[in-house]
Amino acid sequence: MSQDIRVDDPIKELTSLLSRLPSIGERTATRLAFHVLADDPRFARALGESIAQIHDRVVRCTRCGNYGASALCSICSDSKRDHSLVCVVARVPDLVAIERSGTYRGGYHVLHGLLAPLEGIGPERLPLDTLIQRVRNGEVREVVIATPLNVEGEATALYVAETLRDMPCQVSRIASGVPHGGELEFTDQVTLGRAISERKSVHDSTQSQGQEP
Amino acid sequence: MSQDIRVDDPIKELTSLLSRLPSIGERTATRLAFHVLADDPRFARALGESIAQIHDRVVRCTRCGNYGASALCSICSDSKRDHSLVCVVARVPDLVAIERSGTYRGGYHVLHGLLAPLEGIGPERLPLDTLIQRVRNGEVREVVIATPLNVEGEATALYVAETLRDMPCQVSRIASGVPHGGELEFTDQVTLGRAISERKSVHDSTQSQGQEP
Repeated sequence: MSQDIRVDDPIKELTSLLSRLPSIGERTATRLAFHVLADDPRFARALGESIAQIHDRVVRCTRCGNYGASALCSICSDSKRDHSLVCVVARVPDLVAIERSGTYRGGYHVLHGLLAPLEGIGPERLPLDTLIQRVRNGEVREVVIATPLNVEGEATALYVAETLRDMPCQVSRIASGVPHGGELEFTDQVTLGRAISERKSVHDSTQSQGQEP
Repeated sequence: MSQDIRVDDPIKELTSLLSRLPSIGERTATRLAFHVLADDPRFARALGESIAQIHDRVVRCTRCGNYGASALCSICSDSKRDHSLVCVVARVPDLVAIERSGTYRGGYHVLHGLLAPLEGIGPERLPLDTLIQRVRNGEVREVVIATPLNVEGEATALYVAETLRDMPCQVSRIASGVPHGGELEFTDQVTLGRAISERKSVHDSTQSQGQEP
């Protein structure tokens, strides 16, 4: 937007702060700011206070790193879940996505980041201590590494797997392949190559040992 | 999103408030909430306070209704502008858009709404008092009605024009026609019909009285 627009400073300040949010450009930020101004002042106060206080009201679970309202998050304090199975994720939204799938009833370990040597995020920045401690205590039967399937996610998966090598637990990685509903014609070559090389025997369930096709 | 997602209440509260903003669905709201949580707490505080305080920090100009930091907005207090020309707009973003066009150096009158009888917004809810007073005082040479070119905007334009009839000022309406860069083939029939019936003489500037083509 040009420099000479005659809106006064508080609106410019709000617009500039809003446009720091992901996927919100300056035009959307301006529209949001004017919407907040045109709406009920009680809404602005409720939203503003909710944002301002979010870091004070939400704490990281001391055990798994998930967000929660107390020292143990709702997942870690759920006795119906299988806490001997631990899924390692990069961020809480990934945990939420896995929960949404409805297929997983174990616990989690949230890294809150991935290895990114170019950005100065090395292994010392990955909080693995509580996970290693749980594994050493014999609490964990299997660690499922569910970091993203990109360069940083794969590097992190490799590092977590190496760290847990020779420790008393199995380590697995989430499956990679053609996504549900995916057309082979439009699937990228890396995914398709992986889907072929990591093919599964169709008769696995009827045999005690899966035969390679 | 499904009911059983294990995020705790402050995040749900924030997500629900964010999703009340225009063009922000529940999925985007969730992503924004997690972004705010992952970002520097100082950013959350700055953004939250900016939103919470916006209604206290921004006041409506007592003369034109534009947003400002004091009783007279930056446009009304600009002595270089021609305040005998007053542009009537529905909302402040419309004023901002006109300012951005760089073609207008007069003043404004912001209605902060349009006639909408079905929603119970009748003429008594349109703040025209200060405009009428300025016109009666002889301060205004021309009122340019720049409400939107839709049903509510046209009804409001008609009402404003009727209110100002027989008062000592000219009343005009912004031009309607094919927009800049518009292909005639893809222009809707109402716009095209208007563009034909409101056609302008090409030689207007060389003659004292425009001849109808």
